[in-house]
Amino acid sequence: MADESQKWVLMVTAQTPTNIAVIKYWGKRDEKLILPVNDSISVTLDPAHLCTTTTVSVSPTFDQDRMWLNGEEISISGGRFQSCLREIRSRATDVDDKEKGIKITKKDWEKLHVHISSYNNFPTAAGLASSAAGFACLVFALGKLMNVKEDHSQLSAIARQGSGSACRSLYGGFVKWIMGKDDKGTDSLAVQLADEKHWDELVIVIAVVSSRQKETSSTTGMRDTVETSLLLQHRAKEVVPKRILKMEEAIKNRDFSSFAQLTCTDSNQFHAVCLDTCPPIFYMNDTSHRQAPIISLVEKWNRAEGTPQVAYTFDAGPNAVLIARNRKTAALLIQKLLFCFPPNSDADLNSFVLGDKSILKDAGVESPEDIETLPPPPEIKDPSQKFRGDVSYFICTRPGRGPVVLSDESHLLNPETGLPK
Amino acid sequence: MADESQKWVLMVTAQTPTNIAVIKYWGKRDEKLILPVNDSISVTLDPAHLCTTTTVSVSPTFDQDRMWLNGEEISISGGRFQSCLREIRSRATDVDDKEKGIKITKKDWEKLHVHISSYNNFPTAAGLASSAAGFACLVFALGKLMNVKEDHSQLSAIARQGSGSACRSLYGGFVKWIMGKDDKGTDSLAVQLADEKHWDELVIVIAVVSSRQKETSSTTGMRDTVETSLLLQHRAKEVVPKRILKMEEAIKNRDFSSFAQLTCTDSNQFHAVCLDTCPPIFYMNDTSHRQAPIISLVEKWNRAEGTPQVAYTFDAGPNAVLIARNRKTAALLIQKLLFCFPPNSDADLNSFVLGDKSILKDAGVESPEDIETLPPPPEIKDPSQKFRGDVSYFICTRPGRGPVVLSDESHLLNPETGLPK
Repeated sequence: MADESQKWVLMVTAQTPTNIAVIKYWGKRDEKLILPVNDSISVTLDPAHLCTTTTVSVSPTFDQDRMWLNGEEISISGGRFQSCLREIRSRATDVDDKEKGIKITKKDWEKLHVHISSYNNFPTAAGLASSAAGFACLVFALGKLMNVKEDHSQLSAIARQGSGSACRSLYGGFVKWIMGKDDKGTDSLAVQLADEKHWDELVIVIAVVSSRQKETSSTTGMRDTVETSLLLQHRAKEVVPKRILKMEEAIKNRDFSSFAQLTCTDSNQFHAVCLDTCPPIFYMNDTSHRQAPIISLVEKWNRAEGTPQVAYTFDAGPNAVLIARNRKTAALLIQKLLFCFPPNSDADLNSFVLGDKSILKDAGVESPEDIETLPPPPEIKDPSQKFRGDVSYFICTRPGRGPVVLSDESHLLNPETGLPK
Repeated sequence: MADESQKWVLMVTAQTPTNIAVIKYWGKRDEKLILPVNDSISVTLDPAHLCTTTTVSVSPTFDQDRMWLNGEEISISGGRFQSCLREIRSRATDVDDKEKGIKITKKDWEKLHVHISSYNNFPTAAGLASSAAGFACLVFALGKLMNVKEDHSQLSAIARQGSGSACRSLYGGFVKWIMGKDDKGTDSLAVQLADEKHWDELVIVIAVVSSRQKETSSTTGMRDTVETSLLLQHRAKEVVPKRILKMEEAIKNRDFSSFAQLTCTDSNQFHAVCLDTCPPIFYMNDTSHRQAPIISLVEKWNRAEGTPQVAYTFDAGPNAVLIARNRKTAALLIQKLLFCFPPNSDADLNSFVLGDKSILKDAGVESPEDIETLPPPPEIKDPSQKFRGDVSYFICTRPGRGPVVLSDESHLLNPETGLPK
């Protein structure tokens, strides 16, 4: 074993993306192992715009497992953290860092404690899948630190136990979470359908809206739906399996029409089973001001063009995620969105449109004044009705890569002490 | 035949109630005949508070069929009016009014024209099932005028061709619309499950909210749902048949707990299939301001009491219909509702709570000032958040009787000319 008198600290920093489901995960068949009632498919979002960075470190001087999120220490005594830590520790192998003169045996890992520091490059509570990126990053980084030999799919089955959708963040591009059959969940894991270069025309615009009321947590919501909705089982058993096959085909063939149609209808069906829950769950909870105008705009635009230009999808929260078929469409989309949802007068454009700002340039919008002179979209009936301030900000992004290890300069923990910098 | 030189006018005036479905009708298997994809069950509302009054008249001097609604002449050339007129005419029999010396043979009815005048004692466009009461009253009144021998059930199959839910307004109390099997719709008709005296404790409170946007018409909405929702068929074939049996039992046994649970879940499932439609239909379109707070209040109250006190149901529009288990509960309900949805400051209580105002008295509310001193309901989190003005008015009512013929003083047409008074 490593000499405990030595004060060495070994650390790894990794970066992991978030993802947005286009065929939704809703409902668990096993609450503890987080085994879903149906397969789901997601698009990984570019970590340049939305990602979690996590540093994991080990040292004989650490006397307990500790974690900091965005600089604040948080408890990791919960079952989900403990499951991930236990599963990854049990797969640890010998580490021999000749450069630093550190040797850790498989046996040592049972006693050694870890420090974890995690940071999201986006607001944590904004409903942007921070737990998916977070658990994926935790498991991926610990896997590297502990010299775990399992591949990304096998790691995904561990991340799944932290947060179901986290398993899909182990890959870039287009990812399927296979629900699996095994009661122990060994075959409930993610596989990559295509990498991010396969379909790199797509542009993703997220409208982040502030929620006035506390949403139902997705854990509670799913449980209620599984227990009370008479439509969920039909969705899971009859509807989703066919949609998964069609969505795989659509992604393989870069068939945007099918992709968009499946994405929109599956988002709507997910919210339908939420409403079929007792008590009903309203995630799209301010439909007249926010979600319904966006849905209506996209539906009318797509119909007018004769072929879908944009897909919409809504997760368990009020944010809209819009996927445009290409950059040109994305520029038109952002024009329409900015017309309908202009910023409050004191807003600065730079903090109102985040991410890939080149889309904004393509749209000819370089100042808040440019927003005020945008033409009314033909899709809206009453151009005088604007929803000023109802969108907090937009994020422009694209399909992105999976987890990567970052260089030593990126460490979030002090390499000497293993405490947050 | 009656002597055409005579200037006689024969008329009948009838009154017919509206109804509210507690197991919903949504989706037609035949658009023209209006044959539904599932059975439905409704409660007939007291015509003292919500009803249609219709005078139908015949005279050899009339040269065409004409109709007035609330005093304005309207076209009856549409297929639905024509179907009802044709079906009822084909069943006309000899009339021999000895007192007035008028004889009309079965054959005469083919050539005679009718004048119709109809009046709703509630706002027509407020989403309060005016077409159900209207077509039921038209068919019932014409049946009386033309001495049609068919019973209410057979008349309901005619009214159904005017507006599906109209068939349920041919009876008072608790009514089932049997979907039927026949392609021609002869067996798609209403039957009475129990009359209004069977369960006369129930109190019904309707919150009428002004809608900011045009709703999707239910004809278009149903068609879209039938064509695109993958959940509707499951609802129609698997879910509703079981619910119908349970609802019949609940009504038979005056089992309010089951009645309320079935009513609420079926309303939510109806809105779920609307959301599962492409494009999605949002009838509960301002959920954060209106419907969701009402649903949340009722759900919390019911949970706190351990047994349901109130059921909620929403039709193809934003109005809430609340059914309280008895008068005492109704008084509590109206207190809670008035606290959350107080009238605008200039409102007069008399025009803010309509119908059976004794409920208001039971609630101890006799002036707008009394509303301001109501205690905050324990079900709401933030008592400072009131939705002032979001409910246009409340109607307090109860289960009510079916169609009746009114006396001659009630005629809406001039007995000499057959034109509106």
